[in-house]
Amino acid sequence: MVQGTVNWNTEITQEWLQSYVDDWVKFYKKQTRDGEVASYIPELNKANPNHLGISIVGNNGVTIKSGDVDIPFTIQSISKVFCFIIACMERGVSYVLDRVDVEPTGEAFNSIMHLEMRKLKKPFNPFVNAGAITVSSMLNGKTSDEKLEPLFILLEKMLGYRPALNINVYESERDTSIRNRAIGYYLLELDYLESDMNITLETYFKQCSIEITVDDLATIGRVFANDGIDPNSGVEIIPRKIVRLAKALMLTCGMYDASGKFAAYVGIPAKSGVSGGIIAVAPPRVRDEELPFIDGCGIGVYGPSLDDKGNSIAGIKLLRHIATKWDLSVF
Amino acid sequence: MVQGTVNWNTEITQEWLQSYVDDWVKFYKKQTRDGEVASYIPELNKANPNHLGISIVGNNGVTIKSGDVDIPFTIQSISKVFCFIIACMERGVSYVLDRVDVEPTGEAFNSIMHLEMRKLKKPFNPFVNAGAITVSSMLNGKTSDEKLEPLFILLEKMLGYRPALNINVYESERDTSIRNRAIGYYLLELDYLESDMNITLETYFKQCSIEITVDDLATIGRVFANDGIDPNSGVEIIPRKIVRLAKALMLTCGMYDASGKFAAYVGIPAKSGVSGGIIAVAPPRVRDEELPFIDGCGIGVYGPSLDDKGNSIAGIKLLRHIATKWDLSVF
Amino acid sequence: MVQGTVNWNTEITQEWLQSYVDDWVKFYKKQTRDGEVASYIPELNKANPNHLGISIVGNNGVTIKSGDVDIPFTIQSISKVFCFIIACMERGVSYVLDRVDVEPTGEAFNSIMHLEMRKLKKPFNPFVNAGAITVSSMLNGKTSDEKLEPLFILLEKMLGYRPALNINVYESERDTSIRNRAIGYYLLELDYLESDMNITLETYFKQCSIEITVDDLATIGRVFANDGIDPNSGVEIIPRKIVRLAKALMLTCGMYDASGKFAAYVGIPAKSGVSGGIIAVAPPRVRDEELPFIDGCGIGVYGPSLDDKGNSIAGIKLLRHIATKWDLSVF
Amino acid sequence: MVQGTVNWNTEITQEWLQSYVDDWVKFYKKQTRDGEVASYIPELNKANPNHLGISIVGNNGVTIKSGDVDIPFTIQSISKVFCFIIACMERGVSYVLDRVDVEPTGEAFNSIMHLEMRKLKKPFNPFVNAGAITVSSMLNGKTSDEKLEPLFILLEKMLGYRPALNINVYESERDTSIRNRAIGYYLLELDYLESDMNITLETYFKQCSIEITVDDLATIGRVFANDGIDPNSGVEIIPRKIVRLAKALMLTCGMYDASGKFAAYVGIPAKSGVSGGIIAVAPPRVRDEELPFIDGCGIGVYGPSLDDKGNSIAGIKLLRHIATKWDLSVF
Repeated sequence: MVQGTVNWNTEITQEWLQSYVDDWVKFYKKQTRDGEVASYIPELNKANPNHLGISIVGNNGVTIKSGDVDIPFTIQSISKVFCFIIACMERGVSYVLDRVDVEPTGEAFNSIMHLEMRKLKKPFNPFVNAGAITVSSMLNGKTSDEKLEPLFILLEKMLGYRPALNINVYESERDTSIRNRAIGYYLLELDYLESDMNITLETYFKQCSIEITVDDLATIGRVFANDGIDPNSGVEIIPRKIVRLAKALMLTCGMYDASGKFAAYVGIPAKSGVSGGIIAVAPPRVRDEELPFIDGCGIGVYGPSLDDKGNSIAGIKLLRHIATKWDLSVF
Repeated sequence: MVQGTVNWNTEITQEWLQSYVDDWVKFYKKQTRDGEVASYIPELNKANPNHLGISIVGNNGVTIKSGDVDIPFTIQSISKVFCFIIACMERGVSYVLDRVDVEPTGEAFNSIMHLEMRKLKKPFNPFVNAGAITVSSMLNGKTSDEKLEPLFILLEKMLGYRPALNINVYESERDTSIRNRAIGYYLLELDYLESDMNITLETYFKQCSIEITVDDLATIGRVFANDGIDPNSGVEIIPRKIVRLAKALMLTCGMYDASGKFAAYVGIPAKSGVSGGIIAVAPPRVRDEELPFIDGCGIGVYGPSLDDKGNSIAGIKLLRHIATKWDLSVF
Repeated sequence: MVQGTVNWNTEITQEWLQSYVDDWVKFYKKQTRDGEVASYIPELNKANPNHLGISIVGNNGVTIKSGDVDIPFTIQSISKVFCFIIACMERGVSYVLDRVDVEPTGEAFNSIMHLEMRKLKKPFNPFVNAGAITVSSMLNGKTSDEKLEPLFILLEKMLGYRPALNINVYESERDTSIRNRAIGYYLLELDYLESDMNITLETYFKQCSIEITVDDLATIGRVFANDGIDPNSGVEIIPRKIVRLAKALMLTCGMYDASGKFAAYVGIPAKSGVSGGIIAVAPPRVRDEELPFIDGCGIGVYGPSLDDKGNSIAGIKLLRHIATKWDLSVF
Repeated sequence: MVQGTVNWNTEITQEWLQSYVDDWVKFYKKQTRDGEVASYIPELNKANPNHLGISIVGNNGVTIKSGDVDIPFTIQSISKVFCFIIACMERGVSYVLDRVDVEPTGEAFNSIMHLEMRKLKKPFNPFVNAGAITVSSMLNGKTSDEKLEPLFILLEKMLGYRPALNINVYESERDTSIRNRAIGYYLLELDYLESDMNITLETYFKQCSIEITVDDLATIGRVFANDGIDPNSGVEIIPRKIVRLAKALMLTCGMYDASGKFAAYVGIPAKSGVSGGIIAVAPPRVRDEELPFIDGCGIGVYGPSLDDKGNSIAGIKLLRHIATKWDLSVF
């Protein structure tokens, strides 16, 4: 695959793409009124519900960004993907999957019920809270900072800078995320945690509070689209096997209990967070050569007004529109 | 995309591929001993548990088949994909999806519980029995034969012959499939059925009893890989939008409550049946050009010895091996 | 215990009691407006929602009746008590309890979910539909009429006449009670039924359709209050052990998923039906001798306007009032 | 009712009763081998599994005690009854029942699932942990000691001495009872708690750790049998309405998820704790005058070897035997 070349039809210029995306961001921005900003973490509730931004970074060297792209936001549940990857890199895929399953649940992300029914004897998947907290407990290190250091190093490798923790969000989350403490104790009782529960939860709240932009998500998504290889250097920074597994999980479990609908209507691996961020990944495809991103791309979206599943209400619609029109689907 | 050309590295000849697949079919055949043939439908229980066969039909014009490829078997739950497609063609996608959701459940295929919890007010997806029976009720026609006629026509278009109903299996299924009658009555009470319940169940039992071979499944899979276009004639026989939706559902919900694991470890759309059949679809991919089926292919597998989820125990392992080695994953 | 003697304070005459009950029937009759007549069986829906009647038959020889006491109605779920008794008499208590548990569920009477969760490997208790249908399958006899003959004989012994089946209700029930067919098939699949499923359901629908009056329920209740002994003849017509068991079950599971509240607020064994009937039993108590029914009594109530649990909305309030004022509670 | 007189047949002397109970305690003591001492709280695990003791204190002035009656033990879940009573006395019955329902659940005492399903929008009853913790949060007072002071006062009124807290058990419980912390956080998130969560849990762990003997339980049970009136002084120490409610709840929900079976086979209000204690209450009954405790009695049992529901395995059998033979059942 030749990287960096623009190879679509001459009529589809970058200017045309930019103006196309601008139009649709403007169009879908109206939809932000139908949702609501997350309220359960007070700090998140300060977000501007009208914001909507998107960044698309293609393997063809083209970057399109539009809307509110400069607003930093915390990654929240998007961190579940990154920590899952780090845990697999540190412990090996088998070790992690022996302790967390990879089945979608049909239940809400913060469900405890499935643990009690114990159909699976482990959390259903690493993207429901029970699974993500279990994954955080597997990270190497004695403190939450030690545990997250490899994640910061990985992010810095991909982004070229070390993202910061939003301390206000972290503290807000730590002090108010009661359900996660209930889940933590439940996991502790089931003996699923590999580290001290308080350090695990501290790790979890910190990983959720890493601050980033849509450009960053798109850049990371592009690495995922390239199976873990840095498109600039050609160096593998995440093992292919692990990034593939992560993408499969994003497709089946990435969008809370609307994951099935997202797979059906959009058809690309993605993970959302309650801050309104979404990371999406379009792997390279054989398609009509006139399509702009057949070589693959990473996409970052931000739109803090959420639907009732906890996904960015306008972000999902924007993604669906673009993925359909530009045929990004993996299917 | 140029169809029909063999474009892989000259060293990977068809002979090499054939011998490779032969070796692995032989290897995985031993695994059939770890499973059990379906027992709840007496007629299915007559299958030979040692059987294992595979057929791969590529867009590159290459067909590989190996093992017990000549054993006819009934499609069982694989029919859920076909009837979902027919219902979408007859009623439109929105009509169907208003009545059946597309979310994976985490529950067994024959679960009634989720209907009672009524989180979704409709069956979770068209591939659990409750959803499939609801879909069958939506098919046009007053009798089960009328309802299934478009399916037979579609199959004939793809296969070049009209497959037959296995009457023994149909009667066995009709007379013994008690849980499906429980589900039928439950759906009737919830007012989800669009046709008479008995005709709906008759339709469902008949669609499950259509007899086919691994070659047939591979041929159909190839049409799916081609987004509904007959690779020989170039004619669209299933609308692209519908076949894409079907492939997305196969990935998220196709392998019973092991769908998440299949997506994670194999990574291609597939649907299994309790007879031991699996249809799998590898859409065209941009990959290393030395790989044999980067142009996409359809795969049919048969291995009636099942694991505890109801999937062909050796078939899944064989598929996983080949999909991994030849990099068929959509991710 | 001396039967037939009026032994309360001379000021509490039968006239006083009659006028007291008349007043409160009149008062609670207004509450019938807050409920709704059962609609899922069309024939039941014809009942007059304003009806409310009560009959109290005491061991002291006093009978008080008031309100709409002459309206015949079908016993519906009240039959679950009677058939449980017959099954215990025919098969022995252990045989029956090996096949149906005696635990309250917290779920609705027509729940299938608990069967699927299979915490108990048998229906939770004989008063949820799944348990009652299982009990009906245990009754001796090849046809539904043979199965129910001992019940009719028992009722005739207590009532002095053989109650009739309301054919319209039976046929309405048989033709429309879809959920019970779902439950029937589910039980069949779990291999819980001891007779042919269709005959079992026919038996169940017939037992529900036996027609009776509040006087009849009070008369039967008085036999229960006397531990199975006919108060007139002194002859035991139900073994004490079985009637005690039935009364315990009535207290813990008799009023659908409001059984706990009925036990807490009323405190006597009772069983309701969706026709609006309730049978209640006040065993003899040591209490203040001025209370009218310390020697025990049977109570029949009819009020077809139901609350959201399926219990007579005014009937429960009337019972609660009288049971509290006259201190009938077993506690 | 004349208190304090022995009025049974002259042949049934206290000596005869004593020797009868001695025989059966000896007989059932062998059954202790079939159970296991609670292990989830380390301190409880130190109990001697062979212990079995009973104390029966009758309104007729007779006290029978037999077996290991001098072993002090902590009341554990038995405290749920006492705190429910205190909460009702402090806040009023309606206030408490608006916040905790009185329905049996069919689920284990430490279930969180029902909270998530939220069928009832409040804990199912005050005797599952979720309900009991909610009740503890309603007690007046800012500290756990303030909250429990009225309970200690009430116990002292009934027992004539102020029972002590077993500090070792309390600390063991506080440090290891992880599931209860999970439940605490879950309740906090649902906004069901009326006090600070940590103080509430501290209160709950302390109330469970009150140390007592079988004599004490029998003495308290006798007050319950007398509807809250101290049989010695004739003074009402618990309002009748509240003690009646408590007895009804004990019957429907007192013995964990074996409450239905206990009601059916034993038939008297009772509450058990995982320490192996049981308090049981036989209200006065009209029965054959030859029976020893027709005037009502309180019973305390201790047997730390538990069955799989968490009830004293030998204690339940002993209670069942005696309740049946002496006809203590309320039905």
